[in-house]
Amino acid sequence: MSAQRRIAVILGVGPGLSASIAKTLSPTHSLLLLSRSLPNSLPSLNLPSSIPRSNILALSSDGSSASLETAFEKLKETWPDARVDVGVYNVNEKFEMKGFLEKTEEDLRRSLEGGVIGAWNLSSLLLPLFLSNSPDTTTGSRGTLLFTGATMSLRAGASFTNLASGMFARRALSQSLAREFGPKGVHVSHVIIDGIIDTERVKGMMGDDQDGKRMKPDEIAESYKFLVEQKRSAWTQELDLRPDVEKW
Amino acid sequence: MSAQRRIAVILGVGPGLSASIAKTLSPTHSLLLLSRSLPNSLPSLNLPSSIPRSNILALSSDGSSASLETAFEKLKETWPDARVDVGVYNVNEKFEMKGFLEKTEEDLRRSLEGGVIGAWNLSSLLLPLFLSNSPDTTTGSRGTLLFTGATMSLRAGASFTNLASGMFARRALSQSLAREFGPKGVHVSHVIIDGIIDTERVKGMMGDDQDGKRMKPDEIAESYKFLVEQKRSAWTQELDLRPDVEKW
Amino acid sequence: MSAQRRIAVILGVGPGLSASIAKTLSPTHSLLLLSRSLPNSLPSLNLPSSIPRSNILALSSDGSSASLETAFEKLKETWPDARVDVGVYNVNEKFEMKGFLEKTEEDLRRSLEGGVIGAWNLSSLLLPLFLSNSPDTTTGSRGTLLFTGATMSLRAGASFTNLASGMFARRALSQSLAREFGPKGVHVSHVIIDGIIDTERVKGMMGDDQDGKRMKPDEIAESYKFLVEQKRSAWTQELDLRPDVEKW
Amino acid sequence: MSAQRRIAVILGVGPGLSASIAKTLSPTHSLLLLSRSLPNSLPSLNLPSSIPRSNILALSSDGSSASLETAFEKLKETWPDARVDVGVYNVNEKFEMKGFLEKTEEDLRRSLEGGVIGAWNLSSLLLPLFLSNSPDTTTGSRGTLLFTGATMSLRAGASFTNLASGMFARRALSQSLAREFGPKGVHVSHVIIDGIIDTERVKGMMGDDQDGKRMKPDEIAESYKFLVEQKRSAWTQELDLRPDVEKW
Repeated sequence: MSAQRRIAVILGVGPGLSASIAKTLSPTHSLLLLSRSLPNSLPSLNLPSSIPRSNILALSSDGSSASLETAFEKLKETWPDARVDVGVYNVNEKFEMKGFLEKTEEDLRRSLEGGVIGAWNLSSLLLPLFLSNSPDTTTGSRGTLLFTGATMSLRAGASFTNLASGMFARRALSQSLAREFGPKGVHVSHVIIDGIIDTERVKGMMGDDQDGKRMKPDEIAESYKFLVEQKRSAWTQELDLRPDVEKW
Repeated sequence: MSAQRRIAVILGVGPGLSASIAKTLSPTHSLLLLSRSLPNSLPSLNLPSSIPRSNILALSSDGSSASLETAFEKLKETWPDARVDVGVYNVNEKFEMKGFLEKTEEDLRRSLEGGVIGAWNLSSLLLPLFLSNSPDTTTGSRGTLLFTGATMSLRAGASFTNLASGMFARRALSQSLAREFGPKGVHVSHVIIDGIIDTERVKGMMGDDQDGKRMKPDEIAESYKFLVEQKRSAWTQELDLRPDVEKW
Repeated sequence: MSAQRRIAVILGVGPGLSASIAKTLSPTHSLLLLSRSLPNSLPSLNLPSSIPRSNILALSSDGSSASLETAFEKLKETWPDARVDVGVYNVNEKFEMKGFLEKTEEDLRRSLEGGVIGAWNLSSLLLPLFLSNSPDTTTGSRGTLLFTGATMSLRAGASFTNLASGMFARRALSQSLAREFGPKGVHVSHVIIDGIIDTERVKGMMGDDQDGKRMKPDEIAESYKFLVEQKRSAWTQELDLRPDVEKW
Repeated sequence: MSAQRRIAVILGVGPGLSASIAKTLSPTHSLLLLSRSLPNSLPSLNLPSSIPRSNILALSSDGSSASLETAFEKLKETWPDARVDVGVYNVNEKFEMKGFLEKTEEDLRRSLEGGVIGAWNLSSLLLPLFLSNSPDTTTGSRGTLLFTGATMSLRAGASFTNLASGMFARRALSQSLAREFGPKGVHVSHVIIDGIIDTERVKGMMGDDQDGKRMKPDEIAESYKFLVEQKRSAWTQELDLRPDVEKW
């Protein structure tokens, strides 16, 4: 008799941190990967061939409740008896160096969509699934919900009016959910990434990381995996990650 | 020759803190008072008769850019040569004790509208006016922009998923604007109110404040006035306010 | 019949911020000024001649309990029936740009003495006097205890191992005392100064403040006075102060 | 040819968290265990017999530089060619429910000794040893220095005047050292423990943890081990740990 299939849902998947998180979780979890550009962009993630393609479901979602509901229906069809017990909200937005008066209300609204509304929608679909799980026999957790944060989640710099508004709000959501759902057996955590991630896009723009100043996606992803594995009497709600050489 | 008329704009005006702020600023400023229910609700503010009615312009605004633009046009018509140099964003929302799974995306969107989008819109209209002012000869300020915060601006409690998201975002906006516009001569500040304000509505719900545990709107308002009067080499970006007896 | 004499006690008095605080409080308070170099250094404070010399008691104290007890006895002899209702702890230490491994345990111990032990000793003598006061009829306060903080009270920079340890500890003391003594009618507040103060010493080292980047001691002192005047339903525990142009 | 022996130094060792950290690190590290009551109290730690007694060096230290220097000389004699690359500062003090005015300067001084001075002394001896190591081939780290914090490291409650002063100072030290020594290849981290640890002492005082509300020392210790294993492009400076059911 085989063990129950476990599912991790990652929203905001591009060829950087999310691909590393997917790879890191793949030995224990099948993957529902979601982003605007999926499934078309799946090859660009360069997931290793060691992950059976049958363990990956890649679907398009912009974080709207409609797109997420469709994706979760497809998830249920594909793996009807699986245990969905990990969610990662990893949507991020490009920074634009513009003054506040050059920005518009639409800039703020877009940052709030990606910052917190998509996170809310994902949480709304995942938490009922988590609550329906029995506690994991090792960790005691019914599910783990992870939010990616950034330096601007804690400090709103001068050109970050809209981005920081979205990221402060995301941190509020994660903290509030941790307080509400911790006692119900769900681990909610917020990971503050304080540095430049060495993705293909960054390499394309800035060249190779010759001085070792950038964060390796695979090294970041180990902390996500660790949070999934923490046991219920000692859960982390928030941790920061930065390279050894970072000035902060 | 008379001195130039000065204008304070207050958005989110009800018969509590905003009325006290209006009263406190009235000796030096004419008032543009804005809220959904104004001008109809003006009598309920119980503003003292010592404020000349001709120094008050009360208009309706829901914080949308359209409603604010209309209000600012009316302001310009009414007092064409005035110096607009104070803005107060004091919109707040009633707390509902509901679990996250009983709430909807609409609850979050409403909290973001009041929490940060209205604040963004007000700032977009006020900051160009402030920048067109010369520095005040006493304070060195071209204008003061004040945001009201709350305990949930810093700590997202278990039933505050949506409200805290909006208030964390408001705090981000205030902090980011302070960093961008401080060096341009604009004082941006965030006031964290940590306690129950003794308004008529609260008295109606909870009776009189017999133990002196509530915050007096007039006493809070003095800190807003103080922020307006601070001089530019020593500006406060954030302060908290709470009653002596508060547990925190 | 004359009003009761009121006393403010300031520890850590040099010719910068403390002198300005003394000057700002002098219309309402007689002054007990304390520092290592007083009373000899009194002329260097350049206090205005408008303060009657009979309203100043300048004594030496290094913050030790013995030196403070002696000073408080002298205070009681000089003004036996006065109301002591303001205390300011303003001791600071020069920053030394040295790496941790070049520093010694003695550096840490010195920073703790000035950072928190002197503050503890001053509080131990002031709080019983405050508690013996009746509430002020205007503010409702039995006394106000103010601690000067700095950027390093919140952020421990790379060369600040010892200094930040002392200043973090000072902030802890102020916060804990606020929680314990607020409900007993004592206002305890922590002022975070984030910038360079334009003192004579700084002018001597760095020249005049030609760009207006420094904090004026008199402008900072107004916030101390404001904290003394706040009314009990809306007390501030912590505020920051910085120049408009400061990068932070 | 055998691999180089690795050493972890733990100061503040009692039969709770420190014993679990020792156990968790024992597969990779020999242990220098230090506390006032060691080596006599070694049996009370209940270390598993799977740890060879020859891998444990238990010595007395009260955190003073003299006692630590003696211990480090003994360490060098015992394992002359070992790589010392983990340090844990885990000293804690019993909370006493007493008002500030019932406490003395000695209470503060004792809290500062345990809170930060012992941590400073341990760091002074460990960091030169770490800097002499080559970077670990897996993590890139020359050494990991871990400080145990608590809720009172962030929030100074009403009866915590002295304890919180020491713990705020410890947090400052850890943060400052992280900023100075991160770029030199040393990982410095601060673990905030927000809950009651289910130690033998606690069980003796409060009975068994029948509701599963307490933190299991072994589950906490896994986070310490994880911090030791983090790779240098993504190091955590601070994380919190609390039980799922904790109100916070």
